[in-house]
Amino acid sequence: MARWDPGAEQRLRKAALELYAEHGYDAVTVNQIAERAGLTRRSYFRYFPDKREVLFAGADRLPAAVTEAVVAVAPDVRPWPALLEAAATVGEMLVELAEDTAVRRAVIDASPELQERERTKFASVTAALRDGLEARGVPAEDAELVAQVGAAVFQNAFSRWIDGGGQRTFRSCLDSVVASLGRQLDD
Amino acid sequence: MARWDPGAEQRLRKAALELYAEHGYDAVTVNQIAERAGLTRRSYFRYFPDKREVLFAGADRLPAAVTEAVVAVAPDVRPWPALLEAAATVGEMLVELAEDTAVRRAVIDASPELQERERTKFASVTAALRDGLEARGVPAEDAELVAQVGAAVFQNAFSRWIDGGGQRTFRSCLDSVVASLGRQLDD
Repeated sequence: MARWDPGAEQRLRKAALELYAEHGYDAVTVNQIAERAGLTRRSYFRYFPDKREVLFAGADRLPAAVTEAVVAVAPDVRPWPALLEAAATVGEMLVELAEDTAVRRAVIDASPELQERERTKFASVTAALRDGLEARGVPAEDAELVAQVGAAVFQNAFSRWIDGGGQRTFRSCLDSVVASLGRQLDD
Repeated sequence: MARWDPGAEQRLRKAALELYAEHGYDAVTVNQIAERAGLTRRSYFRYFPDKREVLFAGADRLPAAVTEAVVAVAPDVRPWPALLEAAATVGEMLVELAEDTAVRRAVIDASPELQERERTKFASVTAALRDGLEARGVPAEDAELVAQVGAAVFQNAFSRWIDGGGQRTFRSCLDSVVASLGRQLDD
């Protein structure tokens, strides 16, 4: 690491998102991102390995946080409500940290490469939910199923939160997705 | 296309799966696959664009079949039971065609590149379920949620079918996953 520059990573993320939204992901280079952030190409690579990961900062820490949130729910709570409680905790944390989520989603939706990366991230969250459920003693087969359904509910809640312009709480989005699911499955 | 060789594609798929299982996906070349199938490298590329797609033959036709199956369910059936009926239809068809599914799954589980491809396929099936539901008049938000949960149920049913060594019908695997899900979500 060179000189201490507390805002550098954040500036790079902001610059990258702006450029991707303006020109499309494929057309933008690392040099352009670094330049807009007032940094060198070399500085860029101190923070991110390539032009893709700048959009997924923190994604490597997410699975551990998810598993931890599932394990932290009181032990007498049954798997599904425990998973929803953990999803609410993680979701509230994510929307606190999230910036420009609607722009980020539009950039990702326009690029097959980024969609693939987003699916990898989603799969790691699903696996983390499953691991958390297994740590609570849920049998493997049920843990897998509940984790997948929980991940789908989580993803839909996050979409509704973005669609609502971030004005609703994450928990209320999650509650409305769970209510929709209940209505659909009871039919 | 050169001379008519009705078994060529099937021999290539079998040879590829055997070699991947023996040596690992990364270590095997197209030349080795062609050789084991008694064909040339050039013949190989008449059937598959690369060494990965030989494991995903027919995957490009799957989404249309899935959407069609959802649309084909009687119009008065509600979204969730309609989706399950379509899943049973598609699943029974897939397990008829499937060969060496347990070996294939083991090969895929051992390779991040193949897992990524499998996730792309899974995402296309989820989108196809959603399209089918929307064609039935289900609002977009509900269609997305029900499709994702349905895809998870489908995937778990397929896993149980493989775990059972193909001895159970796909429909009975699907029924048991749906029953598990009902028990978990009612808690």
